[in-house]
Amino acid sequence: MDKIVYFDNAATTPLSEEVLREMKPYLTDFYGNANSVHTVGRQAVKGLDMARETVADILGADFNEIYFTSGGTESNNFALRGSFLAREKGRDKLVVSSIEHSAVLSTASELEKQGAKLSMVKPDKNGYLLASDYEKVGLSDCFLAGMMFANNELGTIQPIKEFAKVCSNFGALSFVDSVQAMGVTDIKVKDLGVSMLSFSGHKFGGPKGVGVLYIKNGVKVAPLITGGYQERSKRGGTSNVAGAVGLATALKLSRIDLEKQTANIRSVKDYFIKKVLSEIGGVTINGGENSLPGIVNITFNGIDGEALLYALDLKGVCASLGAACSAGTIEPSRVLKEIGLSDIDAKSSIRFSFYKQNTTQEVDYAVEVLKQAIKKVSG
Amino acid sequence: MDKIVYFDNAATTPLSEEVLREMKPYLTDFYGNANSVHTVGRQAVKGLDMARETVADILGADFNEIYFTSGGTESNNFALRGSFLAREKGRDKLVVSSIEHSAVLSTASELEKQGAKLSMVKPDKNGYLLASDYEKVGLSDCFLAGMMFANNELGTIQPIKEFAKVCSNFGALSFVDSVQAMGVTDIKVKDLGVSMLSFSGHKFGGPKGVGVLYIKNGVKVAPLITGGYQERSKRGGTSNVAGAVGLATALKLSRIDLEKQTANIRSVKDYFIKKVLSEIGGVTINGGENSLPGIVNITFNGIDGEALLYALDLKGVCASLGAACSAGTIEPSRVLKEIGLSDIDAKSSIRFSFYKQNTTQEVDYAVEVLKQAIKKVSG
Repeated sequence: MDKIVYFDNAATTPLSEEVLREMKPYLTDFYGNANSVHTVGRQAVKGLDMARETVADILGADFNEIYFTSGGTESNNFALRGSFLAREKGRDKLVVSSIEHSAVLSTASELEKQGAKLSMVKPDKNGYLLASDYEKVGLSDCFLAGMMFANNELGTIQPIKEFAKVCSNFGALSFVDSVQAMGVTDIKVKDLGVSMLSFSGHKFGGPKGVGVLYIKNGVKVAPLITGGYQERSKRGGTSNVAGAVGLATALKLSRIDLEKQTANIRSVKDYFIKKVLSEIGGVTINGGENSLPGIVNITFNGIDGEALLYALDLKGVCASLGAACSAGTIEPSRVLKEIGLSDIDAKSSIRFSFYKQNTTQEVDYAVEVLKQAIKKVSG
Repeated sequence: MDKIVYFDNAATTPLSEEVLREMKPYLTDFYGNANSVHTVGRQAVKGLDMARETVADILGADFNEIYFTSGGTESNNFALRGSFLAREKGRDKLVVSSIEHSAVLSTASELEKQGAKLSMVKPDKNGYLLASDYEKVGLSDCFLAGMMFANNELGTIQPIKEFAKVCSNFGALSFVDSVQAMGVTDIKVKDLGVSMLSFSGHKFGGPKGVGVLYIKNGVKVAPLITGGYQERSKRGGTSNVAGAVGLATALKLSRIDLEKQTANIRSVKDYFIKKVLSEIGGVTINGGENSLPGIVNITFNGIDGEALLYALDLKGVCASLGAACSAGTIEPSRVLKEIGLSDIDAKSSIRFSFYKQNTTQEVDYAVEVLKQAIKKVSG
C-alpha cells in the first residue's frame, strides 16, 4: 500500500496492539456467556467485572454506575430516550445545544415527535456554550439537559461543571456526551457532578462496537434495550466481554502519563497549524484556544472542501469535512453554520484530527500534499 | 485448567479460529470508520459490504434488507419497538407467543405500558405453536406478530411459513426471532415470507456484540438507535466492521455441508439422550421430535436442578437451567411452566446444548459425572 497519513482520528483511532492482546483471551479461551453460572460463564464474568471496575476507577464512579453498551450512539440514545420515558410529570422539556453530535440531535428530534418540548442552546462564534444559556431557556420543567464535553468538529471544551451545577439547581438531569473528549481528558464524574456521561471505546485506541453510559446512582432512566438481566436489568443482550475488556484497557492506557500523551498530540497539531498558517494563505482556524489536543478545523477560503479532501486522499492524506457520521450528505456542517460560517465557508472547511501515533514527519508530508492539492483544486 | 465439557452452546459458542482470522485485519490494518470517505474508511466499508453481501446471499435476502445491530436482543427490540412506533392507525395489537425469549417478552410488556394491546399465544404440551392460534387471537388490528423460529430452551421448531402466511393474510407484520436456529438451519427469508427476522453472531461460532435484523423491503420500522446515516439511517453508530465480518464468516462456515454438520451435532445429542435414558432412571425429555439438532431439555424427577448443575460444574460439565439471559433468578423456567410442568419439575430440569466441537467421548464423561452428581444431590 502507498503511504497513508491518517489525520482523521476523531472519526476513529487504530486499535492499540496492547488492547487487542488483552481482548484476545476473551475472544478465544474465555468464550463463555457472562450470564452463565458455570465455570466457563464465570471466566467471562471475571473479565467483564474487571473491565467495569477499571472504567469505574478511572472515572471516579461506583462499579454499579457503569453500563456497557454497543457504543456512544447507543449510550446517547439510552440517556435521552430512557430519561424521557422515566421523566417526572410536569418535566417535558429537553434542552440540548445546537452543536451536539447527530446521535443526540436526531434523538432529540425524535423525542420531540413523541411529545418532548425541545429547546436548543446556541454556541458563541468560537463554538463555546454557556451554562447560563441553559438556565435562560428554563430548566425547572426540564427532564434532561445535554451539553457535550467537547465538540467533535471544533474540539472546543465546554463548561461541564457549571452546566451540571445549573441543572442540579433546577432538578434537571445533566447529560454529557464525552465521546470525543474521553481518552484525552481527565474526566472524573463526581467532580463534574453530572447525572449521566457517555463515551465510546474506539475513539481512544479501543475496539468499535462497545461504549459506556455512566448513570449516577439514583438517576431514573428506562432501558433502551430490554431483555435479560444483563447490566443490572438496564441493558439486555449477551455481554460483549472482549469489547468491554478492550474499552477498559484502552482507557487505562490513555491515562498513563495523560499529560505527556496529550502534550505530544497537541504539539503535533500545533506544528501542523503553524505550518499551514505560514505556508498556505487564506486560511482561518475555527474554534478557540480551550480545545481538545487533537482537533483542528480549518477553512480554506474559496476552496471546495470535498474536492480538496479527495485530492488529499489521492496522496494518502486522510481528513474529513466534519463528523464521519454525517459523511455522505451534501449538507454543509451544521456545527460550522451554528458558529456563523456561511454555507460556502462551511463547505470549504476541513477537520484534521491527531492522535498518539501521528508524527511531525507526517505533518511535513501532509502540508506538502495540502499545498499541491490546493493548487490543483483552485486551478 | 481441569477438564471442561461445555454442553451449554445454546448460551453461546466458542469463536471459531477461522472467524477470528477473518476478523483480524479489521481489528488491525483496516481500522477505519466505515462512514469516512477516504482510503482508510473505504477499506472498512469494503469489509462491511462483503459481510452484508454474504449474509444477504445466505438468507436469500437483498443487500439492503440486512441491518447490522449489536446482537439478537437489540434486533428484537428494534423489530418490536420500531414497528410499534411506525404502526398504522387502528393497529395497536402485538401478538407474541408465551415462550419467546425474554428480549421479546420484556419488550412486549414494555410496549404494553406504552399503549400496545398485548396478546399471547400458548404452546402445546410439547412446546409447539400453531399459526392458527395467532389467527384466533385476531390479526386484523395487529401491527406485529412474533413467533420464534425454534425455542431456546426446548429446541422445538415452529411452523414459520404458515405463521408468515397468516400474518400476511391479515396485513400484520410477521417477526421471527431466529437467534437459536441460525447456524443450524437453512433459513431463507423469501421462502418463509417473513417481514423481519433477527439473529445474533455468537450462537454459531461468531463474535459477541453483533447481530442482524432482516427487514423486508417496504416494511416500515422506526429506528431504535438514531444518530448518523449508518445502516441506511436505520441504526446510528460507528459500524462494528470486525464484528460484522465475524458474523458473516461464521454464518458462511455454518452453511458448508450444513446437513452433515447438523447430523453430527444431532448424533452427539442423540447418543447423550440414549445414554441418559438407559443409564439414569426417572428422567423425562421435554419438547418434541421436530427440534434443533443441539438442544435437549431433561427433567430429573425429584432432583434440585440448581444443585445438580453445581455438582456438574464442579466436575467441569457445563449446562444450564434455562436461558442464560434469565440466569440469576430463582424463578422456574417460564417456558417449561408454559408447556405444563409444575414449579418443582421445572426446577428439576436442565438444558444440555451441543455444537460442532462436542464429541461422544465428552458425552461418556458427562454421563458418568451426571450419574455421580445425581447420587450426590439426592443423597
